[in-house]
Amino acid sequence: MQACIMRNGELVVDEVPDPVPTEGQVRVRNLACGICGSDLHFLKHGTKMVEASDDLLPSMGAMADIAVPTIDLSKDIVMGHEFCSEIVELGPDTTGPAPGTRVVSMPALVSATGIHQLAYNNTYPAGYAEQMLLSAPLVLPVPDHVPTDHAALTEPLAVGLHAVAKSGVTKADAAVVSGCGPVGLAVIAGLKLAGVEVIVASDFSPARRALAAQLGATEVVDPATEPLVDAWRRVDGRHSLVAFEAVGVPGRLRALMLEVPPATRLCVVGVCMEPDTVLPFHGIAKELNLQFVLAYSPAEFAEALQVIAEGKVDVSPMITGTVDLAGTPGAFDALANPDAHVKILVEPARR
Amino acid sequence: MQACIMRNGELVVDEVPDPVPTEGQVRVRNLACGICGSDLHFLKHGTKMVEASDDLLPSMGAMADIAVPTIDLSKDIVMGHEFCSEIVELGPDTTGPAPGTRVVSMPALVSATGIHQLAYNNTYPAGYAEQMLLSAPLVLPVPDHVPTDHAALTEPLAVGLHAVAKSGVTKADAAVVSGCGPVGLAVIAGLKLAGVEVIVASDFSPARRALAAQLGATEVVDPATEPLVDAWRRVDGRHSLVAFEAVGVPGRLRALMLEVPPATRLCVVGVCMEPDTVLPFHGIAKELNLQFVLAYSPAEFAEALQVIAEGKVDVSPMITGTVDLAGTPGAFDALANPDAHVKILVEPARR
Repeated sequence: MQACIMRNGELVVDEVPDPVPTEGQVRVRNLACGICGSDLHFLKHGTKMVEASDDLLPSMGAMADIAVPTIDLSKDIVMGHEFCSEIVELGPDTTGPAPGTRVVSMPALVSATGIHQLAYNNTYPAGYAEQMLLSAPLVLPVPDHVPTDHAALTEPLAVGLHAVAKSGVTKADAAVVSGCGPVGLAVIAGLKLAGVEVIVASDFSPARRALAAQLGATEVVDPATEPLVDAWRRVDGRHSLVAFEAVGVPGRLRALMLEVPPATRLCVVGVCMEPDTVLPFHGIAKELNLQFVLAYSPAEFAEALQVIAEGKVDVSPMITGTVDLAGTPGAFDALANPDAHVKILVEPARR
Repeated sequence: MQACIMRNGELVVDEVPDPVPTEGQVRVRNLACGICGSDLHFLKHGTKMVEASDDLLPSMGAMADIAVPTIDLSKDIVMGHEFCSEIVELGPDTTGPAPGTRVVSMPALVSATGIHQLAYNNTYPAGYAEQMLLSAPLVLPVPDHVPTDHAALTEPLAVGLHAVAKSGVTKADAAVVSGCGPVGLAVIAGLKLAGVEVIVASDFSPARRALAAQLGATEVVDPATEPLVDAWRRVDGRHSLVAFEAVGVPGRLRALMLEVPPATRLCVVGVCMEPDTVLPFHGIAKELNLQFVLAYSPAEFAEALQVIAEGKVDVSPMITGTVDLAGTPGAFDALANPDAHVKILVEPARR
């Protein structure tokens, strides 16, 4: 089968062996798979990410396999973890949805040798291949009325729902969201679902600010014109504040710690791989709380699919383009321009 | 009266005007006043601390006056905020304990112009003077059986009780404490009071490790020999973990974020004025929570006095020396050696 492969730090489309499901696995055809910021980062800074993960290994305990996979960058990797796929074949002695059923799944595959994180491993191709393997107990059928493209956004929406839950934000709080890329937008959708009434979001891109307003931000600002927290003070300034850092570039955490009022809870959801210099004094003088978040629980993943299916969150404005496998390398390049694109879906099975 | 004054970055003993209480204030004679790490830091890095505080001012809202006082370093400052004092005179139309009563108080003074943080301001001399003013509603009488020296440790103990409360630690958790200076020791005392059964503490100083064990640490380690979290894994490793950073030097926060297991709650209680470089990726991969803490509530301050009075915490091992005003500059120098001293009390009224 064909796949868009990360090989020696480049993306190439080439043949890889067809996957063969073993017991408990299903083989699926990938209909749509979103390109994630993590994928862009991994392609560009894979070595650094692998090193950082290796540093963490000794302290991860039972989570080491899932959260910190061991990857050999000199070998092929087929990424893609935001997918909607169609069941082709059930493995031997495996119960699961019938072939033809569209499904989504958390990007984890259980095999005889352990739990493998799909998208960042050398053994199992993921969403940027024509086909892949999933674990039968993890797949969730997509209701018929839900477009495939929307279902593919289950995973990034789950990231937002998880961040909102982990932040502890309630209806009694106000929220500010720094950064309106896919993660920030998913956070905004989650905040609206949670009933938060004041949601102030900032992004340099006018297109992304417009999307933020569509997804539920009650005020959007260009941080070049007005700092995010100043905008919150202008429109509210009286609720207790929860601040989401969804930019993930060095310097933003420090700046946000300086901007926010005392007792603010900061939720760090933008993955920043670079070292960031903070002033602990800022945190201490204001008794700030920083909650770092990652991924989602199985329940949150299922909830994301459900709110999309029920029409409670309309993710469609986030989708700004689709490509086939041959167009995938170009799509990675195009995503560097934040005003042109938010989420591009790869359609690996498209002919 | 005499006072040990911070003047142009040096400590000098000189005359200052006798304080005169107005309505709501009391004049007290200072019997004992502990030297705090903040005082050492302020003497050495006052300019940097004032600048860092000024940076924070716009975001502090109603807390600006208390948490971020405006200080002119070119003018005299009389520090000292860990005191036990004796009432000399009540201000006009002021109700309070009778003259001769020993009292402690949170280091804040209410005047007609606002709330002033005692110890870091240019107007009101604090504990390193023979006498000072306190706010009548804030003073707490010290029970007769409590030695003056012990009562003077109310303030640093309150810092520990507050950190423990704010960390959210419960009996079901284990705790590690990095650094066994006065703050770390107060945290250890607070953890023991809270019923935490596994308390692992680290410090390079054998003397401080011995004190940690006296105050309630169930395991003490030299971090040069065994990393703190490794020691916890050796003796426990199964409870959920709350980690206290009580060293306050750059690099410790980053190191602790790397050492601890997933889902650890870190409580940052050591005031670090220098920038610290952290790797947000470490926080994200483990979903760490960082709670920065400062000071204490009035209730926690009163609780600290109460547990000292009831004998639930024996703070006496922390007191490693006493000096008069003339000996105060030398005591600041002596505290640079962590193996020689923990807490030195200044006795400004000693003749």
